[in-house]
Order: sequence, then C-alpha cells, then structure tokens
Amino acid sequence: MSTLFPTVVIEHLSPQIEGGHYPIKRVLGEEVTIDADIFKEGHDVVLALLKWRPVGAMPWQEVSMRCIGNDRWTGSFSIGAESPLGFTEYTIEAWGDAFASWIEEIQKKCTGGATSLLSETLEGVALVQEAAKRAGKNPASKKLAAFANALKTASDPAALVATATEPALISLMGQWPDRALSSTYEPFQKIRVDRPGAAFSAWYEFFPRSAEGKGESGSTFRQCLERVDDARAMGFDVIYFPPIHPIGITARKGANNSLFCKPGDPGVPYAIGGPAGGHRAVEPELGTLEDFAWLLAEIQARGMEVALDFALNCSPDHPYVKEHPEWFFHRPDGSIKYAENPPKKYEDVYPLNFYNPEWKSLWNELRDLLLCWAERGVRIFRVDNPHTKPVVFWEWVIAQVQAQFPDTIFLSEAFTRPKMMRVLAKAGFTQSYTYFTWRNTRAELEEYFTELTRSEMREYFRPHLFPNTPDILPWYLQEGGRPAFMIRAVLSATLSGIYGISSGFELCENAALPGREEYLDSEKYQYKQRDWNVSGNIKPLITRLNAIRHDNAALQQTNNLVFCDSENSAILCYRKTSADKSSSLLIVVTTDFRNVQSGWIHVPTGDLGMAPDSSYQMEDLLTGEVFLWQGARNFVSLDPSRRVAHILRVK
Amino acid sequence: MSTLFPTVVIEHLSPQIEGGHYPIKRVLGEEVTIDADIFKEGHDVVLALLKWRPVGAMPWQEVSMRCIGNDRWTGSFSIGAESPLGFTEYTIEAWGDAFASWIEEIQKKCTGGATSLLSETLEGVALVQEAAKRAGKNPASKKLAAFANALKTASDPAALVATATEPALISLMGQWPDRALSSTYEPFQKIRVDRPGAAFSAWYEFFPRSAEGKGESGSTFRQCLERVDDARAMGFDVIYFPPIHPIGITARKGANNSLFCKPGDPGVPYAIGGPAGGHRAVEPELGTLEDFAWLLAEIQARGMEVALDFALNCSPDHPYVKEHPEWFFHRPDGSIKYAENPPKKYEDVYPLNFYNPEWKSLWNELRDLLLCWAERGVRIFRVDNPHTKPVVFWEWVIAQVQAQFPDTIFLSEAFTRPKMMRVLAKAGFTQSYTYFTWRNTRAELEEYFTELTRSEMREYFRPHLFPNTPDILPWYLQEGGRPAFMIRAVLSATLSGIYGISSGFELCENAALPGREEYLDSEKYQYKQRDWNVSGNIKPLITRLNAIRHDNAALQQTNNLVFCDSENSAILCYRKTSADKSSSLLIVVTTDFRNVQSGWIHVPTGDLGMAPDSSYQMEDLLTGEVFLWQGARNFVSLDPSRRVAHILRVK
Repeated sequence: MSTLFPTVVIEHLSPQIEGGHYPIKRVLGEEVTIDADIFKEGHDVVLALLKWRPVGAMPWQEVSMRCIGNDRWTGSFSIGAESPLGFTEYTIEAWGDAFASWIEEIQKKCTGGATSLLSETLEGVALVQEAAKRAGKNPASKKLAAFANALKTASDPAALVATATEPALISLMGQWPDRALSSTYEPFQKIRVDRPGAAFSAWYEFFPRSAEGKGESGSTFRQCLERVDDARAMGFDVIYFPPIHPIGITARKGANNSLFCKPGDPGVPYAIGGPAGGHRAVEPELGTLEDFAWLLAEIQARGMEVALDFALNCSPDHPYVKEHPEWFFHRPDGSIKYAENPPKKYEDVYPLNFYNPEWKSLWNELRDLLLCWAERGVRIFRVDNPHTKPVVFWEWVIAQVQAQFPDTIFLSEAFTRPKMMRVLAKAGFTQSYTYFTWRNTRAELEEYFTELTRSEMREYFRPHLFPNTPDILPWYLQEGGRPAFMIRAVLSATLSGIYGISSGFELCENAALPGREEYLDSEKYQYKQRDWNVSGNIKPLITRLNAIRHDNAALQQTNNLVFCDSENSAILCYRKTSADKSSSLLIVVTTDFRNVQSGWIHVPTGDLGMAPDSSYQMEDLLTGEVFLWQGARNFVSLDPSRRVAHILRVK
Repeated sequence: MSTLFPTVVIEHLSPQIEGGHYPIKRVLGEEVTIDADIFKEGHDVVLALLKWRPVGAMPWQEVSMRCIGNDRWTGSFSIGAESPLGFTEYTIEAWGDAFASWIEEIQKKCTGGATSLLSETLEGVALVQEAAKRAGKNPASKKLAAFANALKTASDPAALVATATEPALISLMGQWPDRALSSTYEPFQKIRVDRPGAAFSAWYEFFPRSAEGKGESGSTFRQCLERVDDARAMGFDVIYFPPIHPIGITARKGANNSLFCKPGDPGVPYAIGGPAGGHRAVEPELGTLEDFAWLLAEIQARGMEVALDFALNCSPDHPYVKEHPEWFFHRPDGSIKYAENPPKKYEDVYPLNFYNPEWKSLWNELRDLLLCWAERGVRIFRVDNPHTKPVVFWEWVIAQVQAQFPDTIFLSEAFTRPKMMRVLAKAGFTQSYTYFTWRNTRAELEEYFTELTRSEMREYFRPHLFPNTPDILPWYLQEGGRPAFMIRAVLSATLSGIYGISSGFELCENAALPGREEYLDSEKYQYKQRDWNVSGNIKPLITRLNAIRHDNAALQQTNNLVFCDSENSAILCYRKTSADKSSSLLIVVTTDFRNVQSGWIHVPTGDLGMAPDSSYQMEDLLTGEVFLWQGARNFVSLDPSRRVAHILRVK
C-alpha cells in the first residue's frame, strides 16, 4: 500500500540544487547532512530514515533522522572510503510509528487515571506479534513473542506501560518496524562522489618548453624532469601543462602577442593544430607521444599527477578545418571566420560552432578527444574558457567521460559572471577557478569566502585558488612584490583545499605590460629565460606551506573555514578544524604588503577546546616559534618584510 | 533544432513552490511577476519572453522580460478578468538574438575604426532577409526587404550602423525574431486562478438554529432570513453555516459539552449522522432539503453566498457505520472506536480511517459528498480539521471538485503547526485560517503579517482572519471587552482581504468558561438566547468597515500590506495601496484596549505621492473627520473607550 499514496509529507530538502536537477558533490570519506520537513496528519509519532546507495547498487544503507524542532529533521552519513566513484543516490523514508503512538496513548490514559486498558493491551500485543512475524527466523522473533506475552499478562495499566517501555522491547520494535505505510521521497537525489584529489591538491603549472629556462630555445618533454622534481620538492601534487598540441603556423603570434611573428618564434600553445596534427597529437618541438608517455610515467612514479589543458581553439592549420569545415563559422563568402572580440581580432584561432547542423559529430569528436587522453593515462583536465561553449555540452561530455573514467577531474577555467561560473560547477565541473585572484582586502576575502563556503555554493562549487595564471598578473602582485607573493601564497594554500601557482610565481616574477594585468614577455608567446633558483624566491615558504597542508587534515578541505574577529582591518584571521576535530589551525595573515600591521585578534578558545581564560602555547608551524597566549584576545604584529602570517596550532 | 538541446540557461525561477510541485495562486485580474536567471555562453545578446495560457488553451500569450542585473530577469502579466478559472500555465522562452548581437559587433568595429565591413554587411542583410521570409504575407515582409536593401547599399560602416539601428528596423526584427534556437523552461509552471471572492470577502458565521436568539428552542432554515438580512445590512458577503446535517443521538453531548444530555438538548452539529441520514441530509429540526434550497436562493438573491462546513465526523448513528463499517477504526473485539485525545474521549464521534483497505471507496464517497452539495449550489466549503486527514487526500479531492466546479472555494480550518498549515494551502486550499486569533501586540502582528505577506507564503497562503470562532473566545476579547472587539474588528477587516466573524462577536459576547478560551453556554451545545441588537453592540463599526472595504480597492487584497514606523509600541500603523495606485489608505490602530495611547507615526509621504514637507488633509473614513497633517511625522492619540483606529485617506 505504500505505493498508493504518500502518508507522510517529506519536503523542502536541503541541500537541494535547482530542485534536485543537479547533484551535490562530495569526495570519499566526506559527510553528507540532509535536512527536510517531515510530518504527517494527526498525532502519530513519525519515524524517518535517511537512505543512500551507489546508483545501481542494492540495498540501501540507512540511518535514523532526528527532529530538530518545527517539523524539521536532520540526518547524516559519510561517503565510505571504499565507495565507488560516480553517483550515490539518497532519499528519505518516513512513516507513522504505530507502536510509539500506542505507547503515547497508554501513557496518557494511565496518567489520566484509567483503571483498565484491556482493549488497548490487545492492540499492543498485536503490534508486537506482527513485529515478531516480520522478524521471521531472526532470534528477535522469539524475544518479541515473549514480550507480547508479558504485555498480555500485565496486571494493570501501570504494569502495561512499564513493560511496553522496556528499552529492550523498544529497541526490538525499532529494528522490526512496520513500514507498509511508509512514504519515500522521490525523485531520488544525487551526490557526485569524487576522489579525494578533487578537494585536496596543490597544482604547479608550467609550459614544457619553459622547463629549462632558456631564452633562445624551448625544452622538450624529455627535459622536463628537473622542473617536475623541483615542483615535487616544493610539495606539489599535480603538474599542469598548458596545451601540448601542435601549434598553428598561419597568423602565428610573436612575442608579447605581436601580430608579427619572427622566424623561430614558438607561437601560442592555445592556437592548436598544425601539419603535425590536432588535439590528439603533440607539438613536435616538445617531442613525440612516446616522449609524453614517458614523462607522464615519470611524474606518476613520483606520486604526482598530470593535468592537461582542454582548449577548444583551432588554428587555421588544424586538421578539422579541412576535414570538417562545417564545424566552424562561415562568412557569407564561404570562408571560415576567425575569433573576434571587436575590435580585437584573433586571426590565429578559429572558434568551433557548437550549433552547426553537424553538431552531433562535433560533440562526439570532442568527447572522443577527452577519452583518448584519458586512455593515455590523463585524469585531470583544466578546461579553457568553458563559458564560451554551451553549458549543456559540458553537462553531457563530462558525464560521458566520467561514466568510463569516474576518477576524472574537470577544472573550469571560467572567469566570467557569477551565475555562469556557478552553473558550470552545477553542470559537472569538479573544480572551478574563482575571483580570489582579485580579492585582496580582508573585507573582500571574508565576503567572498563566506559566499563560497556558507551559501549553497559549498555543495557544488569547489574553489581552486590561483594567485596568478599565465594570463593574469594581478595588480596586487605587480605592486606589492615579494611580500605580496608571500601573502597570496599563504592565502591560496590555506583558504581552500585546492590551489595552484603558475610557474614564475615562486620567483616573484612581477614585470607586467604597462597598465595591464598581463606578464611582460609572457612565455605564452616566447621562450623565457629564467633562473629557477633566483635570489629572493619564495620556494622555502611554498615548500613549508605544502608540507603543513599534507600534515594537517584541517587544511585538506574548504568548507570548514570560519573567520575570527580581528581588531585590525588589514589582518585576516580564520580557523580550520578537521571533521574529526583532530586537526585544528588558526591562521593569521596580513593583507598589507607594505606596512607593519598589528592588533588584537580573538581566538575562538571554546571551539579549540579551551577554557575562556586559560593560558596556552601556540606553535607557529611556519617558523617553529612558540607563543604563550592567554584567553581569547591576543596581540599579533606582522611586518611584511619579515613575516606575513602565522599558522598556529595549540600545543 | 530547439528541441535538441537547450541553448540558454533558464533557472532559479521565483516564485516557485517546492520546485514547481505546487502552483502559485492568483485571482482574476491579479498580476503575476516571475523572476529567473537567464544567460547563455559567449557574448550573444539574449532575449527572453514570459509566456502564459490557460491549461489546455492555445496559443501562448507573451510579454518581454527585462534584465535587472547579474543575469536576473523579470517579467509580469495580469490574469485577464475573463480568463477561465482553474489552472493557467506559464514558462520562459529565451534565445540568443542574432540581429542585436550583429549590431553590437558592427558598432564595436565601427568605433574601433574599421573602414570596410563588407562581409558583416552581407551577414546583416541575410538576417533581415530571413526575417522578411518569416513575416511571409504580413506587410512587415516588404518593409524588412526594403531595410535589407538599405543595409546592402550603405556607403560606409557609419552608414551601416545608422541604418541597422533605425528604430523601425529594430522593432520589425523584434516582431519577427528567429526562435529556431530558443530554449523553453520545463516543466511548465502552474498558477491556480480563482474568482475574486477567493481573495476578497467578509464572512458572517451563524448557527441556523440560533437565528432568532431563542433560548428554549431552535430556529429553522425558514426562520433565518432576519439574521441574513442583518448580516447583509452589516455588509457581509458570505453566510457561513456550521454543519446543517442530522445530529447523532447516541452519546449526544449536553450544554457546555456535558456528558449528560437533557431531553430536548439539540446536540453538537459536528456529531454528524442520525436516523434522518448523513452528510447528504439536513437536520430535521432545521427543515428539509427544500427549505435549505429556498434559504440558499434567498441568500443568493441578496447578492451573498453560502459557505457550508465540511466536517468529516460521524456520530455512532451515521448511516456509514452500518453501511461501511470498514471505513472506521476497530478495536480488537471488532467494535468501532470513538475519537480520543487521551485522556479526553469523544464518544459521540467516530473518526474515519483514511488508510482502511477500502480507502478508495471512502475517498470517492467523500468527493461525491462535496459534488452533491456543489450541484445543489454551494460553492464554498469551510473544511473542519483538515490537518487530521492525509494531505494527499485534500490535494486529490480539491482537484476533483474544482475540475467540475472551478469556482469552488475551500477554506482550511487548521489551527496546528506552521508547516502543516502551509502544506494544506500548497496542496490546494483556497484560503486558510491563521494564528491571527492569538496575535495581539503590535510586534506580534507585524512579525506574523510580514511572514504572511513577504515570505513565499504570499504566493499560496491566503489568510482568512477570524477574531473569534464558535470554539475560540481568545483571552484578549475576554479581558478587553468592547474596545478589544473594536480593535480586532478593525484589524481583521483591514489586514487581509478576507475575514469573518462568528455571530455574537458583533454583540461583544465575552463570557468564557473559567480559565479557558471557550464560550460559556456555547451555542455549539445548546439553544442560545440573544438580543441581536443588544446595547453596546459594534454593528455600526462593522457596517462602516465593510463599506470602506467595498469602496476602497486598497482593502481588497492582502499582499499590499506595508507597515509604517510608529514611535509608540502599542500603535500599529500600516499602508495599503491598490495595484493601480488609485486607492491608498493609511491605517492606525491601537493594540491597547485599556489605556489612551498616543505618539508620532511616520507617514510614507513619498509612497502616497506627496513631497516630504507638504501639508495635506487626512480624512478619517471611520468618522468623516478631516485632519491637517504635515510631512512624515504626525501625532495621533487613541482612547480605546472612544476610538480605536483611524482609517485615513489623503484628501
């Protein structure tokens, strides 16, 4: 009968993204808490279970929900560390609990002075006998039958209540409930379950051709190991390569995005496709597919991963242009249009037309590109400009790839309007670039990270923090130099579980095109001369930050961020505590790269398990220093020329 | 191609009740405003339409939406006064506007210094020619073709832009857009469209047997006209009768809910069913079905309506008990259970078991009861205790009845927990009882009515305000006497578009059972002696209030309520303005029935169309007095023994 009509109202589930159209996201081991309004007509006692299972699996796992007032219920479970990656579904099942309602009834009648409850006794006996029947061959059956007899022979109402409320009986009745009249919430809701690296990792981006830092020629895949080992020594987990595919020749750009390309200029890796092939091939100057496979294996052997760029730009020399001219935009004269953002022209790039009449063949080919690289062992794709392609394309292609390779991570490189950034994350991107790059003051950072970690975004938008990218040298770094780089390194590494730097950041490179947030002599357009150990680099700080991240579970997630009071508007203070409370850090960072800033911060002593006025030792994990603090209000002073932050642990 | 995949993201519609599972509600003539996030990849200009139609009708009506920032769009339409009652559906259609995007492109190129736009010109010409083709035989076709020629012969980029941006061309292109790549939001969303009386009416409740106010015997239907005419004279729109069906004899209750019934005691009308029949029949003491039909016709002839009580209580003498014992709850010995709320017993009422194995026949019978009375001409049902029956039953039965009688109004008499009250409204009840009965202070009233009119509830929960009911004589009225009755009358009649009083309220009857919020010698249990024109009655005030309601559109709706500042915490001040701004009132009410309260209130002069410091005349519609006021801050003094409120209109 439970299928005939719902007996319990179950509604207003939270979280729920666009009415359940999109899944929420978790990684293995993470907790899921679901709240819902659950109630039923009349006075029956209601019971509710939160149920979950990997999609396609049977049976459900179940956990009791509890009412937290005003007909609002809550329940929690953890995604098991051994769960399959992909989708887990969940629902809520609730029903009126006849036995608990019966106990309430006889208790009230007993209190009300009833002297005989013969009929009520028979009803209770029947309820317990039915449970015994449901228990079948389970030993509980005999125990329940014995309780039924005990109820039957209760001498008076008080004795009846005493027997009915024996914890052993209540426990047994809870284990063998009558769910025939239960209601189940539909449609089932979904959780995208990713591997831990989706929520915790540090990325190091470099152009393979820049690996050796030579100004006159490029490096090859075979010459990348030194750079990889340096990144590994700094503690990075992922090596992210901008496009490694053949670079177009037609309309190739020269240094600093010049329209005029000198002989020998290497071109922009984002103008993909040439005589050597398209997105399946690699640029001959970098080596062969075998060389790439070797490099990939070497990186993986070091316990690291590779992320590739997925940039859907075709140079005029891309094989698609001849093989599938219908996939591009055409002028009235039949020629193919290059990319434009008037009055800017990008003659070296032809955009794809996702709405062309042969869109199905295009979409399938793009999916096959991703599958091809996944088959070659790549499981992380950083997607270039996804916000200029249909959202539904990403929803489709990510689902297609993850169906075959569930451990694949997609990072959305969308720097655009807020709602487009959000919908890309909802539609399937595992991680997302953010506005962090331009949030510099304490107030800006607190506002933005409160939105990221306290709004519904926390359920689906994993912020991947980059203080710089090959395209973006923010004004703050240009102006602030080394202290600014240190500040942004600490913030990136501690505000979110996932962050990355684009190579050169560790060297505090901050020469910009005048009046622009772009690099002077950017390696996007040329070979780049570099001393990877130039004096003034902040590699020791980055190394320390990554080590602290690996040692402290508190920094391996994002939504545990809690801002703390500080009496200085340039000093940001926040706490992170791991789910099991075993790891808890207090981070204090100046946002002023120029002046000494000092003031009082308010330590959440209660949250850190301390009495309000206790004295305690705070160990700075960045330096090893130990400070003696007392109570909530403590003094800090940060001189950006010497120290930009404390990362503190109660000793 | 528009069916192949969505090209525009349309999401986060507001209002939307439980993800669109429930409709929003409107009456004929009311406005609907829908907001949504609408955006698309890339840089295309987006156009969006809000579309609506009565369910089952073709074609859609359409109105343009406009972007209000951050990819949020809004659109509004009115439910036509001639629309069919029932469900209207709506959706949003959006697409990238190729012509507007093309204009942006050539404008930017022109500004950027382009000297020739030959290819772009051909693209624009093609867009206009395609629109001409879509226009077909419409005269617009020739005009568009002429514009295409004009574009083709534009002498330079500036001339091209000038022609392209001619208002006539933009208007024509807007009328014949290319919607081949449009996206439409699904599923279509629903609006329950009710007749105006669903949102604006004043109810007068009386027991037919009490019509003549005789203490020794009851009145009949044929003796009710005097009471009806008195209610009509007071300006009421609806006569609401508690159950008029045969009253049970077994375990009949006596005066003041006594277990002992004296010979001649008339019994409780809520214990339904006896030798004369069940819910289809009428109590013989009141007359016959013909008598009822006569009374109904007389009431309707006076421009008023009748509301009947739908109380699903069966006395032990109800025909169902013999005909359908399976519809009731049974004890282990097979006997039928009476209603209980331990330790209270209601031996005169058998509750129905909505989950009994023959539930379908029960549900069908209950639907048929409603249909039977609808066929007899009753179109308003006040449903007794709906929160003790399955919510899904109401969702089903209301839909079934309204499918045949779309003008039927259902009032939910649920005084229970907030979420149950809300879900009953969402599931289909046209109007709902509220907590107003127990909200007395200014702070309580402001908080509750802000929730009702500013939260999502405004979309589906129509508050029907009763200052008293036959079951409820609130402490405030008991204690405060006549001034309290006057205060509650003003609040009921002006805070919501729908309100009602239970007879005796106009006489300020406030004798209660000691320590209870129930009437002493309640007419629920006995014949009631009354002088319907007893001295001290507030019929003149009620008459005036109903007249003001009828004369001022501002009081004919509820969600236009706006609270205004008052410097005295016992003086409530609020403004109501009709949608067309033609009617605007400022209401000032004391909530203190004992003491003179005076103080400064803040008139929203700007909202009333006045300059901040202007002087103006305020006419009190209750008394006809005129006050000279100036600016926002004005003084009021309310002496509850003389005057409890102003209802002010700028003269």
